Amino acid sequence: MNEKINLEDKIRLLERPFSPGIVGYLNDYKLAVVKVRGEFVWHKHDETDDFFLVLRGRLTIQLRDRDVVLNQGEMFVVPRGVEHCPRADEEAHVLLIEPRRTLNTGDAGGSRTAAEVEI
Amino acid sequence: MNEKINLEDKIRLLERPFSPGIVGYLNDYKLAVVKVRGEFVWHKHDETDDFFLVLRGRLTIQLRDRDVVLNQGEMFVVPRGVEHCPRADEEAHVLLIEPRRTLNTGDAGGSRTAAEVEI
Repeated sequence: MNEKINLEDKIRLLERPFSPGIVGYLNDYKLAVVKVRGEFVWHKHDETDDFFLVLRGRLTIQLRDRDVVLNQGEMFVVPRGVEHCPRADEEAHVLLIEPRRTLNTGDAGGSRTAAEVEI
Repeated sequence: MNEKINLEDKIRLLERPFSPGIVGYLNDYKLAVVKVRGEFVWHKHDETDDFFLVLRGRLTIQLRDRDVVLNQGEMFVVPRGVEHCPRADEEAHVLLIEPRRTLNTGDAGGSRTAAEVEI
């Protein structure tokens, strides 16, 4: 991971939505790309904020009291402890940044919990 | 900073190249945008890696042994302790992520050291 990363090239390697692929590290943070299509699961991270940047398409981050709709070039940080549920009606491409070992499903767990995979 | 951030809207608020504007935080990291035009100063950060994502244009990160040329949608993490000098022949727009209180000029210091400014 000592080379530059083209994020769209990496996204093409992803087979399934909601399965992030790690493309690099920043100290003890993982830098991951993910395809979002459909609705994920409601969850929160009590130990960390959660960074989203939309690279392509439109991503809705549902919060309990409102929706945050992100278009390409827009970012949002979900504060720690805040329940959220990402959704995209059409496929969206997203850059995620979180501390290593953060679970994609946070406190919810379940079958959609993804292993940490480098791509 | 509880709202979404449109990165290009924020970049339009920047008056000078090489003066980053902080647009948000991720735990103890600052999320900043910067305009790059011309050449910066050679420096390194002994305590942290350094994240660059090109939002528009082309950025060359000069390392002592090679150049890393980043186009839009490409990112690179300069490992801690590695000397580098960003350069752009035409204006480039970049997302930077570093721990709070990281100096833009690292160990070099000098007149191009920028204060931490939220925009």
